[in-house]
Amino acid sequence: MDESSLKSLLDGVRSGATGVDEALEKLRDLPFEDLGFARLDNHRSLRTGVAEVLFAPGKTLQQLKSLVEHSVESNAAVLVTRIEGEPARELLGDYPFLRHDPQARILSYRASPLATREGYVAVVTAGTADLSVAREAALTLEFLGDRVEQLSDVGVAGLHRLLPGLKLLRGARAVIVVAGMEGALASVVGGLIDRPVIAVPTSVGYGASFGGLSALLGMLNSCSAGVAVVNIDNGFGAACFAHLV
Amino acid sequence: MDESSLKSLLDGVRSGATGVDEALEKLRDLPFEDLGFARLDNHRSLRTGVAEVLFAPGKTLQQLKSLVEHSVESNAAVLVTRIEGEPARELLGDYPFLRHDPQARILSYRASPLATREGYVAVVTAGTADLSVAREAALTLEFLGDRVEQLSDVGVAGLHRLLPGLKLLRGARAVIVVAGMEGALASVVGGLIDRPVIAVPTSVGYGASFGGLSALLGMLNSCSAGVAVVNIDNGFGAACFAHLV
Amino acid sequence: MDESSLKSLLDGVRSGATGVDEALEKLRDLPFEDLGFARLDNHRSLRTGVAEVLFAPGKTLQQLKSLVEHSVESNAAVLVTRIEGEPARELLGDYPFLRHDPQARILSYRASPLATREGYVAVVTAGTADLSVAREAALTLEFLGDRVEQLSDVGVAGLHRLLPGLKLLRGARAVIVVAGMEGALASVVGGLIDRPVIAVPTSVGYGASFGGLSALLGMLNSCSAGVAVVNIDNGFGAACFAHLV
Amino acid sequence: MDESSLKSLLDGVRSGATGVDEALEKLRDLPFEDLGFARLDNHRSLRTGVAEVLFAPGKTLQQLKSLVEHSVESNAAVLVTRIEGEPARELLGDYPFLRHDPQARILSYRASPLATREGYVAVVTAGTADLSVAREAALTLEFLGDRVEQLSDVGVAGLHRLLPGLKLLRGARAVIVVAGMEGALASVVGGLIDRPVIAVPTSVGYGASFGGLSALLGMLNSCSAGVAVVNIDNGFGAACFAHLV
Amino acid sequence: MDESSLKSLLDGVRSGATGVDEALEKLRDLPFEDLGFARLDNHRSLRTGVAEVLFAPGKTLQQLKSLVEHSVESNAAVLVTRIEGEPARELLGDYPFLRHDPQARILSYRASPLATREGYVAVVTAGTADLSVAREAALTLEFLGDRVEQLSDVGVAGLHRLLPGLKLLRGARAVIVVAGMEGALASVVGGLIDRPVIAVPTSVGYGASFGGLSALLGMLNSCSAGVAVVNIDNGFGAACFAHLV
Amino acid sequence: MDESSLKSLLDGVRSGATGVDEALEKLRDLPFEDLGFARLDNHRSLRTGVAEVLFAPGKTLQQLKSLVEHSVESNAAVLVTRIEGEPARELLGDYPFLRHDPQARILSYRASPLATREGYVAVVTAGTADLSVAREAALTLEFLGDRVEQLSDVGVAGLHRLLPGLKLLRGARAVIVVAGMEGALASVVGGLIDRPVIAVPTSVGYGASFGGLSALLGMLNSCSAGVAVVNIDNGFGAACFAHLV
Amino acid sequence: MDESSLKSLLDGVRSGATGVDEALEKLRDLPFEDLGFARLDNHRSLRTGVAEVLFAPGKTLQQLKSLVEHSVESNAAVLVTRIEGEPARELLGDYPFLRHDPQARILSYRASPLATREGYVAVVTAGTADLSVAREAALTLEFLGDRVEQLSDVGVAGLHRLLPGLKLLRGARAVIVVAGMEGALASVVGGLIDRPVIAVPTSVGYGASFGGLSALLGMLNSCSAGVAVVNIDNGFGAACFAHLV
Amino acid sequence: MDESSLKSLLDGVRSGATGVDEALEKLRDLPFEDLGFARLDNHRSLRTGVAEVLFAPGKTLQQLKSLVEHSVESNAAVLVTRIEGEPARELLGDYPFLRHDPQARILSYRASPLATREGYVAVVTAGTADLSVAREAALTLEFLGDRVEQLSDVGVAGLHRLLPGLKLLRGARAVIVVAGMEGALASVVGGLIDRPVIAVPTSVGYGASFGGLSALLGMLNSCSAGVAVVNIDNGFGAACFAHLV
Repeated sequence: MDESSLKSLLDGVRSGATGVDEALEKLRDLPFEDLGFARLDNHRSLRTGVAEVLFAPGKTLQQLKSLVEHSVESNAAVLVTRIEGEPARELLGDYPFLRHDPQARILSYRASPLATREGYVAVVTAGTADLSVAREAALTLEFLGDRVEQLSDVGVAGLHRLLPGLKLLRGARAVIVVAGMEGALASVVGGLIDRPVIAVPTSVGYGASFGGLSALLGMLNSCSAGVAVVNIDNGFGAACFAHLV
Repeated sequence: MDESSLKSLLDGVRSGATGVDEALEKLRDLPFEDLGFARLDNHRSLRTGVAEVLFAPGKTLQQLKSLVEHSVESNAAVLVTRIEGEPARELLGDYPFLRHDPQARILSYRASPLATREGYVAVVTAGTADLSVAREAALTLEFLGDRVEQLSDVGVAGLHRLLPGLKLLRGARAVIVVAGMEGALASVVGGLIDRPVIAVPTSVGYGASFGGLSALLGMLNSCSAGVAVVNIDNGFGAACFAHLV
Repeated sequence: MDESSLKSLLDGVRSGATGVDEALEKLRDLPFEDLGFARLDNHRSLRTGVAEVLFAPGKTLQQLKSLVEHSVESNAAVLVTRIEGEPARELLGDYPFLRHDPQARILSYRASPLATREGYVAVVTAGTADLSVAREAALTLEFLGDRVEQLSDVGVAGLHRLLPGLKLLRGARAVIVVAGMEGALASVVGGLIDRPVIAVPTSVGYGASFGGLSALLGMLNSCSAGVAVVNIDNGFGAACFAHLV
Repeated sequence: MDESSLKSLLDGVRSGATGVDEALEKLRDLPFEDLGFARLDNHRSLRTGVAEVLFAPGKTLQQLKSLVEHSVESNAAVLVTRIEGEPARELLGDYPFLRHDPQARILSYRASPLATREGYVAVVTAGTADLSVAREAALTLEFLGDRVEQLSDVGVAGLHRLLPGLKLLRGARAVIVVAGMEGALASVVGGLIDRPVIAVPTSVGYGASFGGLSALLGMLNSCSAGVAVVNIDNGFGAACFAHLV
Repeated sequence: MDESSLKSLLDGVRSGATGVDEALEKLRDLPFEDLGFARLDNHRSLRTGVAEVLFAPGKTLQQLKSLVEHSVESNAAVLVTRIEGEPARELLGDYPFLRHDPQARILSYRASPLATREGYVAVVTAGTADLSVAREAALTLEFLGDRVEQLSDVGVAGLHRLLPGLKLLRGARAVIVVAGMEGALASVVGGLIDRPVIAVPTSVGYGASFGGLSALLGMLNSCSAGVAVVNIDNGFGAACFAHLV
Repeated sequence: MDESSLKSLLDGVRSGATGVDEALEKLRDLPFEDLGFARLDNHRSLRTGVAEVLFAPGKTLQQLKSLVEHSVESNAAVLVTRIEGEPARELLGDYPFLRHDPQARILSYRASPLATREGYVAVVTAGTADLSVAREAALTLEFLGDRVEQLSDVGVAGLHRLLPGLKLLRGARAVIVVAGMEGALASVVGGLIDRPVIAVPTSVGYGASFGGLSALLGMLNSCSAGVAVVNIDNGFGAACFAHLV
Repeated sequence: MDESSLKSLLDGVRSGATGVDEALEKLRDLPFEDLGFARLDNHRSLRTGVAEVLFAPGKTLQQLKSLVEHSVESNAAVLVTRIEGEPARELLGDYPFLRHDPQARILSYRASPLATREGYVAVVTAGTADLSVAREAALTLEFLGDRVEQLSDVGVAGLHRLLPGLKLLRGARAVIVVAGMEGALASVVGGLIDRPVIAVPTSVGYGASFGGLSALLGMLNSCSAGVAVVNIDNGFGAACFAHLV
Repeated sequence: MDESSLKSLLDGVRSGATGVDEALEKLRDLPFEDLGFARLDNHRSLRTGVAEVLFAPGKTLQQLKSLVEHSVESNAAVLVTRIEGEPARELLGDYPFLRHDPQARILSYRASPLATREGYVAVVTAGTADLSVAREAALTLEFLGDRVEQLSDVGVAGLHRLLPGLKLLRGARAVIVVAGMEGALASVVGGLIDRPVIAVPTSVGYGASFGGLSALLGMLNSCSAGVAVVNIDNGFGAACFAHLV
C-alpha cells in the first residue's frame, strides 16, 4: 500500500465515503509486510547500484535472461558477476549493449553513468594470479560510481615494489588488498597506512593454502589494526563494502 | 637523519667544509631505515590514538608498567586492552589516574579529551554475553574520539527487538555487529541498512560453535553485501577499523 | 517362525506328537533374527512410503533397474533420489510410467495416490540456488502424501520478503528451511514462529562456505530454540523427518 | 500503536478534528517495528513456557537475579539452564521457591503446573555420562508441560539392552537420543522406529571425539531417515524442538 | 525366560495344564529382547574379562562404588580405567583388595587369576611420555590373561634402539605400537614385521600435534600394510583388540 | 651377501686362501644394509603374497608393465590395486593371463593357488555403495590364501537384516566391516561378537560425510571394544591386517 | 636515484649551480622506495638464479611468453615451474632453446652454466609417486648450480632399502625428503643423520591423507630435531631453501 | 660385536679352533641391531650437543633427576627444555650448578664451553609475547656453541622497525623468525634477504589464530622462497636446524 492509496483511504474517511470501521479493517489488514516493504524499498533506492546485481552461479540461463531484462527495464542498469563462457556469450548475443569482462567474469550495463564520487578506492594485488578477483572489485566499484586506482604485483616477497605506491594508498578513501597464499600483504599495508583496509583472501596457492583458508586466517589474525576481511575470492563484496565507506 | 641535519650537510658541501665524496658517503650510509622511520613516524602521528595501545596478554607486569609510563609521558594517553584481575589492580595502584572497566577489560587514560568526531558508530549486540566484546569496541572508539550508540540484545531469535533500532543504525557512520553462536545478526543488519557493517564474531556459544568459528564462518559467508569481518572477540580491531571509516 | 507354525508346534506338544525336548530344541533354535525380522517387518509396513526409496549414487544402472522393478512390484510405488542425466533417461526409457523431475533429481511413481494428510509442510528457501534441494524435499513429501507450501527467495539479505509469508509458516505442521552461505534464515524463521523448523544447509556458496559447512554450523548454533538440522543438501531427509512429525 | 489508538485517529479524521495530511503523517511514521512487535508479541504468547528461559553462562549474578525476578513476576515461571555451583546457591538463597537439579544444571519454578500434554517424549541415553544432557532435556520438557519417559544406558555396544525398550520408543510422540563417542545410537533407533528422532550429540568421549564433533558428524550422516540433529550437549534445544512437534 | 521356564511351559502344554492358546500368548509375548539377551549373554560369557570393565570419567563416586561392588560380586573381578586421585583413593579405601596403578590410571581386582594364554602381545612405545597409555594397554592385557612384553623408548628419532627388539616383535601374537607426535613408529614397525600392528596414537606432543590428531592421521596413512588404528590414547581398546586376535 | 657367499668366505679363511685381515676387511665392509636386507628378505618371504602388490595410482603405464612383469617372473603372482579403465585394458592386452575385477579395481594373477588357510574372514558391508571397497578386501584376502564370507547391505538403518548373519560373524577369524556415512555398523557389530573387527570407513556419503571423515571418526570413537580402523576406502589394508591375524 | 645522480647533485651544490634548498627539496622527495629498491636490487643480484623463476599457474600464455622473453633477455636464463601440456608446448614452439621436463613440469634455459657449488644436496623419495615433486626440486637445484644426488623409493615400509644410502645422505650439504601418506621418512632420516633435513610433504595418498595434510602434520611433529618443512608438493621451495644453506 | 671379537672369530676359523659352520652360525646370528647400533653410535657422537637434551613435559621428577644425572656424568652437559615452576626448583635444589632461564623455560649446564662456531644465527621476533619461544631458540643455540643475535618486536604492523636490522639479518648464517598471529614476518624477512629463514609459528594470538595454526599455515604458504617451518612454539627445533646449517 503506497502513500497515495493511503491518502485516498483517509480522504474517503474524511468525506464519509468510507466508514471508520471499514478503514480500520483495511488498516488492520494492512500487510505488515507491505508497510515494511515500502520502507525497505525507500531504503533500497538509497542503495542504487547494489540492488541490481545478479550472482550468476546456480541460476539457469533462462532465469538470468529474465532477471537481466527486468533489471535493465527497472534500473536502466545491471551487473552480473561470476559469469563466463557459454552463458556469457548467450547473454551478450541477446543483449548486445552489455559489456563483458572475461578476467573479472562480469557482465555490466548502465544507461547513463553515475556521477563519480569524490576520492578513490585503491585495489592492491599481491600476485598476477590475484588479478581476476581484483578486477571484479574494480569493475564493481566503477559500476557503483567509484573511482579506482590499482597497484599490482606488490606481494611481500618483493616488498620494495610496494613502497613506491604508499602515497597512492595513503590518499585513498579505502584500500582493498587482494592476496592469496599467506595473505601477508594485508597486514603489511595495514601497518603502513591509516586508511581502512578491506582484505580479500584468494584461493590462489596450492597445498596447505587449502583453497584460500590460509590467506583468510592470516588476514583475520592481522597484527595491524584497521584490517577487516571478506569471504575468499569475494571481490564483489569488498567493493560493496568499500563503496559504503 | 632529520631535515635540519640534512640541511647542515648540504650547507657544508656548499661551503666546501664537507667534501662531495664525504657527503656522498654519509648519504650512501643514510640509513634506509631511518628515512623510512621518519616517514612512517609522520604517518604514525596521523594515527594518534591508535599508536599508544597496549595488548596486555603475554606481557609481564614489569613490561606493562614501563610501557604505560612511556606512553603516558609521550602521548599523555594510554589504552591497555585485555587486562583484568591482579595486573589491572597493580597498574591502578601505581597509576591511580587510570580508569579500569572490568567488563571491557580495558585500562585507559587521556589527559585532555580529543575533539569528538562528527557522527557516531553504532555497536549492536546479539546477546547479553556479547556485551564484554561490545564494550571493548565502544570504549576504544570513545578513546579515539568517536561517539558511540549501543543497541543491545537484539539477536535474530527475537527479530522484533531489532526493528525499532533501525533508524539508529541507518544514521550511523558505521555499524559494528557483535554476535556469537551462528552470527546471523550481521547478515540481517547488513540486509536492512546501507552503512558498512563490521562484524565481530564472539566465542559465545558451546558445542559446535567451536570457540567462535561458526559465527566467524557465518559472517564471512554473509549473503548481505556490505559486511566485513574481524577476528573472533576482536572488539578493539573492529573499533579501529570503524574509526578509520 | 510365524504364529501359525508356532501354534502347530504347540498343538504337536499337546497331542504328544512332538516331544517336549524336541519342542524345546526347536524353540531354542528359534532364530533370534527371524523373530526380530518378523517384528521389524510389521514395523516396516507402518512406514509405507519411506521403505521403497532408492538413493541412486553408487548403484549401477543394472542394480537400479532391478530395484525399481522390485519396488514397483511390491509397493506399487518407487522413489529414486539423486538421479539425473543418462541413468535417468535409461530408466525412463524402460519404465515410461516413471515421472522425472530434473531440478529435484527425482524419479517417482505411485500407482494410486495416498490419501493426503491434514495440514501442510512449508518449504522455505533463501536463494534461487537452493531450489534444487527444496524441490527434493517437496517432491518427497508429496510422494509420502503430505501437502506442501513453498516460499522462495526469502533470504535474510532481504528480510522484508520473508515477512508476508509468516502467516503461511505459522500455519504449517512443520517448516523446512533450505539455505546455503551462512544459513541464517533458519534462525530468523525459528525466532518468528512456534512450529518445528527443520534446517537443511546447502552447499551453495563459495570460499569459506566450505561446501555447506558454514551453513551447517550456523544452523546447529542457532540462537532460536526449535531448530534441528539434517545433513548438507539432504532435502530427502528433511522431508522424511517432517513427514514423521 | 494499538487498535484503539488507530480508531481514535480515524475518528478524528472522520470528524475533521484531524486533517488528512496530519493523519497521513502519523500513519507514515507508524513504527514498522511497533506493528511488528505487536504481532510478534501475540506470537510470543503462543510460545508460553519457552519465553521465560534464561541461559546462565556469560550473565553476571546481578543480571541473573533481575531476570529471574522479572520472569517470575511476568510469567509466574522461570527456567534457568546451565547453572551450577556458587551462582545456583546464590539464586536459591534469594529465591527459595526455585528448585535446583544439579545433574541437569537447571533452576526452575512454575507457580501453577501446566496442563500435561497428551502423549510423551522418550529420552534415550547411550551411556551413564550422557545423563546430564538427557536430564536437561527431560526437565525442560516437564517444565513445558510434556510427559517424559527415559531409557538409559542402551548404547550400541550392548544392543540387546535397547531392544526391550522398543515398545516404549514406538509409542512416543518424539524420541530424543542423547549419545557421545560415535553417536551411532541415533541411527540405530532411527532405523527401528517410525517416530521423529531428535539426536543430541554429547561431548562425552576423548581423543578423536573432538569434544562431540564425531558424534555430531555421525548423527548428521545417519543412514536412517527421520533423524535431525541439534547442537552438541544441547538438551534444552532438543526438548524445545520435541515440544513443538 | 530361561530354558527351564521354557521347559515348564512346554510340560504344562503337554500335560494339558496349560492351554495351547495360553502358551502361544506367553510365547508371543516372549520378549524379543529376553531371548536376545539370553543369546547375547552366552556370548558375553565368552568374552569374560572384557565385560566387567568400567570407564571412570563421567561417573560419580557413588555410581562407581555400586558398579565396582556389583562387578566384584558377579564376576569376582573388576577393571576400572582412567581413574586417579581422589576417586581412586576413595575406592581403595572402601575396597582394599583393589590394586591401583597410578601411571596406568587403572584399578583392578581378580579373585583367581585366569589361565595365561599362549604367546604374548608386544607393547612398544616411542617415548617416555607414551608410557602411561602403554601401561593401560599392558595391565588390561594381563587382566584378560595375556602375557605382555614391553619395548620402550624406541622412537624413530633413534631407530637403532628399535632394531635389537625386532626378534621380540616378530615373535609376538600381535604388536601394539604407542606413539605420539608424528606416530611414525607404527609404520616403521609395520614395515619390519609380519604381525598385526595395532597403533595407538597418543596426545603427547604440542603445537601442530593437535592433541594426537597428527599421530592419528599418520598412523591411518601408514604406508605399511598390516597396521590398524584405535582412538587417541586408547590403550584399553588396543588391548581388547589384541586380546581378540 | 647371502649365506652361501658367507660360507665361501669362511671356507677361504679356513683353507688359508683368504687371509684373516682380508676377510675382516670384507666383513667390515659387509654392508649394514645387505645384512639387513638378507634378514628382511627372509622376513619378506614369510609375508608371501603381500610383497608383490602394486598400488597403481601415480605410476605410469610403463612403470606398471615392468613391475608386473618383474613380479610375475619372481613371484609367479601379482596383485595390482586401484586400477581401472585404459591402464587396466592395456595391461590385460599385454598380459592376457591377468584377471581383472572392475568393481574391486584389481588385476591379479597367481600361477598356482596357495593352500587355503583354515577358517575364514567375514566381510560385512553397510550399503550397496560400499561393495567396491569390500570387494577389494575380499579379492585381496583370496589372493593371500584366505577364505572369505560376505554379508552385504546390513547397515544399521535396517538392523534386522544384520541379525541373521550373526552366526556367520561369530565364526570368523576376523571381521572386516565396510561402511560409509556415519560408520555405525562397526560399533554395532563390535558389540555383538567377540572377534576382532577391522573397520574400513568409506567415502560413501555426501555433505557432512566429508569424504569419509565422519565414518572414520565414528569408527575410531566406537564405544565397542575390539574395533580397530584403517584408512578411508582402504579395503586392501584391512585385508592385509586380517590376513596377519 | 643511483649513486652517480646523487654525486651530480652534490657537485651542483658544491659548485653553487644547485641551491641548498633546491637540493634539500630533491633529497626530501628522494623516494623512500627508490633508495630501497636500489638496495634491494643489489640484494637481488646476490640471489641470481632465484629471481628469474616463473610460477606458471594463474598466468595466461601471453603473460608467460612476455615474462620468459624478458627473463631470457635480462638474465640469459629462465625457469618456469608447474607447466605442462598445451602451454608447455606453445612455449617450446616459440622458444625452442627451452628444455622441458614433463615429470618435473619445468621449462628451463640457461645460456652458460653456473659454476657448480661444492658439495651436493641429496633428494630422497619415499615412493614412486613422489618422484614428480622430487624432480622439481632436483632440476631447480641444478638450475641454481647445485649438484644433486637422488635416492628413490626408500619409504619406511621397507626400511632396509634406506640403509645402504645413509652414507650418501650423511655426506650431503642438506637433505630434501619428499614423502606423502604419513610422511614418516623425514623423521627416520632426521634421526639417522646430522645434516639439515628439509621435508616436503606430498599430496600422494588417499582417504585420510587429506591432500597431503597428514604428511605435513607428521613432518611438523617430527620427533627428530633438525627437520624443517615446506608447503605440500613444494619441491621448488625446498630446493631454494637447500640452495641457501 | 666389535671388530676385535670379529677378528678372534676369524682367527679361530683360520686355526681350525672354530668350525666353518659354527662361525657361520655366529655370523648369521650377528645381531643386525648391534652392528647397526655401533654405526649409529659413532654417528651420535658426531652430533654432540643435541644428544643430551631432555624434553621435560610428561616425565616425572624422578625420571628427570636420573636423566639429568646420567647426562651430566656422560656428557658433562645437559639441556632440559620446557621446564618451569616446581620441577625446575627441585632440580635446581639438587643440582645447584644448573642454570635456569624462566622465560625460555630451560635448565642447562655445560662443564666446559664449546668452541664458538664462526658466524651467527639471527633470531627475530614479531612481538613481545613471542620472546619466550625466541629465547628457547637462542639459549639452545648458545648451548650448541652458536653465536646468536636477536632482533625483537619487529612485526609487520610496524615494518619500519624491521628495516634497520636488515644488515644484521643479511650477515647471519641462518635466520630464525618467531611470530604468532598471522606469521607474516617470515614472508617479509624471506623476501628481503638471501639467507635460509627458519620460521617458528607461535601460539600467540586469540580467536581465529587457533593456537598457532594461522601462523603455521601462513608460514607454509609463504610467497617467499627460502622459508621452511618447524612446529608451533618449537624454538628448540628451529635452533637445532639452524645449528646444522
